[in-house]
Amino acid sequence: MAPDGITTARAALPFAPSGIVTPTVPPDIVTPAILLDFAIVDANIRRMQAHATAAGVDLRPHVKTHKSVKVGRQQVAAGSTGITAGTLGEVEVFAEAGFDDIFFAYPVFATRARAERLRAVREVARLRVGLDSPVAADALAAAFSGGAPLEVVIEVDCGAGRCGVPPAEAGALAAHARSRGLLPAGAYTYPGHGDRDAAAPAEASEDELAALATAANAMRAEGIEPVILSGGSTPTSSRSARAPLTELRPGEYVYNDLGKLRVGACEPADLAFFVAATVVSDAVAGQVIVDVGTKALGREGSDQRGYGTAPDVPGAVLTKLNEYHGYLAVPEDVARPRVGDILVIAPNHVCPVVNLFDEMVVHEAGRPVGRWPVDARGHLS
Amino acid sequence: MAPDGITTARAALPFAPSGIVTPTVPPDIVTPAILLDFAIVDANIRRMQAHATAAGVDLRPHVKTHKSVKVGRQQVAAGSTGITAGTLGEVEVFAEAGFDDIFFAYPVFATRARAERLRAVREVARLRVGLDSPVAADALAAAFSGGAPLEVVIEVDCGAGRCGVPPAEAGALAAHARSRGLLPAGAYTYPGHGDRDAAAPAEASEDELAALATAANAMRAEGIEPVILSGGSTPTSSRSARAPLTELRPGEYVYNDLGKLRVGACEPADLAFFVAATVVSDAVAGQVIVDVGTKALGREGSDQRGYGTAPDVPGAVLTKLNEYHGYLAVPEDVARPRVGDILVIAPNHVCPVVNLFDEMVVHEAGRPVGRWPVDARGHLS
Repeated sequence: MAPDGITTARAALPFAPSGIVTPTVPPDIVTPAILLDFAIVDANIRRMQAHATAAGVDLRPHVKTHKSVKVGRQQVAAGSTGITAGTLGEVEVFAEAGFDDIFFAYPVFATRARAERLRAVREVARLRVGLDSPVAADALAAAFSGGAPLEVVIEVDCGAGRCGVPPAEAGALAAHARSRGLLPAGAYTYPGHGDRDAAAPAEASEDELAALATAANAMRAEGIEPVILSGGSTPTSSRSARAPLTELRPGEYVYNDLGKLRVGACEPADLAFFVAATVVSDAVAGQVIVDVGTKALGREGSDQRGYGTAPDVPGAVLTKLNEYHGYLAVPEDVARPRVGDILVIAPNHVCPVVNLFDEMVVHEAGRPVGRWPVDARGHLS
Repeated sequence: MAPDGITTARAALPFAPSGIVTPTVPPDIVTPAILLDFAIVDANIRRMQAHATAAGVDLRPHVKTHKSVKVGRQQVAAGSTGITAGTLGEVEVFAEAGFDDIFFAYPVFATRARAERLRAVREVARLRVGLDSPVAADALAAAFSGGAPLEVVIEVDCGAGRCGVPPAEAGALAAHARSRGLLPAGAYTYPGHGDRDAAAPAEASEDELAALATAANAMRAEGIEPVILSGGSTPTSSRSARAPLTELRPGEYVYNDLGKLRVGACEPADLAFFVAATVVSDAVAGQVIVDVGTKALGREGSDQRGYGTAPDVPGAVLTKLNEYHGYLAVPEDVARPRVGDILVIAPNHVCPVVNLFDEMVVHEAGRPVGRWPVDARGHLS
């Protein structure tokens, strides 16, 4: 009998796992390893860029997903305005690699050490940073006093309940920033409530557009004309590319994952990113153990929903993870993989997986390309 | 009003957070960063060693928790028999650092690439590896044919339902391994079901001792005298240090965390490992946002139970994590920390956190010691 959880996990995956095209596994691979199909990455990049271009909005991809200089260069080559980063370490890695237009979309608090590093980045790149409090504005102003004013973008909350002032208060914070010598360039928001279920992206998209409109009006009431109104996670990007938004900041579209598939943000064939795993044990009935656990996949998902699938084993779901062990529940009517088999795992959420590996095994539609570094892996602070 | 989840999260933490002693934060710290108090680490090492020594069993700490050569050396200096590792990468890092007695407690499948690396390790260290299938035995035998026989330890399942043959079948697998030219040295088991709740360690301890006794008898029935009967996670170690067990393999006792506290495996003052975080936003009522998310803490816990606490903010619980954001819910009657404040976070589970950082900021009872590398961070394959 299959262990508890398999039925629930399958029910929570409302799509045909058979639509996912898994890559060919190189014969010399040592698992666990990231398998990246750059042909699909490139197609994903071009599709999102074409969407933004057609809609007349800028695309500024978030590099937190890939942390890869090579992938970031492909995004810029395809037409993106610049990049978005989530940590100062990411900002630095990409600035050093020559990226010259970076939005650090985070409510950064400029301690003395961070201030010095931010100033060093601005020597080589255009830099904008997020802001959502007067206290942080004062620290940034002190860090950049005497030089050219730093561009700040006011973060407003559109429903995620994370960071950001209420949209109507964006004007007051922008005016405070201006009074301290900072240059308020516009507003941004994060529609993080758009990944809850398949209905969520549409609602979250309306929320972010409304929040940006309110923020823009609040800034104009203070005599500040916003030049950037930025939003757009991967789930909302298809709907949010319109006024008043001027800039999309999706990250995950570049690789995609089961989570994006679940909310309708991609098609099965758009998944470019997988993890190769070896079956190391079949000692317990109804499952096999693979050599990917939380230190390779994070713990994205739940015991009920599962932590990933093995698309080549129909209905198989990772129902439990330890640090170096993944419990792959295999339906009764499906042949269990054998010890020594290498499986391709589709993760729920790519971003934390990327951050756990130093390199990726890259191919392009089956042709080996090589090993690429995850340049900004870690770089948290 | 505090957001949903705070009441549930507090109820799920049945201990007084005020008992946790948080370290002094160095003034120049850049967050997020690991803060390690080596005085507490040393006390934890000595206590577990004294326990094992008094009970007459070997202690072979699992290095997956700390991945640190310096911490591992302290364990060996205190009297441990050797170390336990969970990946071939960990085995290599510690062998290169001079550790000469390593149990690779994992059902390793020896592909050609892995076989070569295993042989290289055995040139410099005593090596034992885990085994739970005839297929894996055959691959190991092929990898070591012609040389001195490789010592294997049969993994048996004592209730975790992960890896391991049923204990009564340990003899048959050991005999198979012997027939292929391997040297079966004994049996090991993982009482992973011992961390479910406060009652679990006692039951899991009984299970592991029973499983090891059965496995030993099964091996003897094949004429194989087990010289190692290995068990003992941190939660079960206090009870399992007795016959037939000969060797304890705990890992987490060296640092401890909220998870160990919850199941009664340590005292609040035994927590040696914390993460420093900066408050970056207080824009949403009832919470502050800190700069630790899943890329610093993993996702160990749940929205209901929480993902960690800030012991200096009474009742505060991380109720949600994004990649670079932690939502710290603060009770209504407690003053919210301010933007720019640095908080000390106590994680639910230290092991995945260790694996996300390249170094640790180490002090010893308040005196700065320096920055130590997490030598085997990553090294998954």
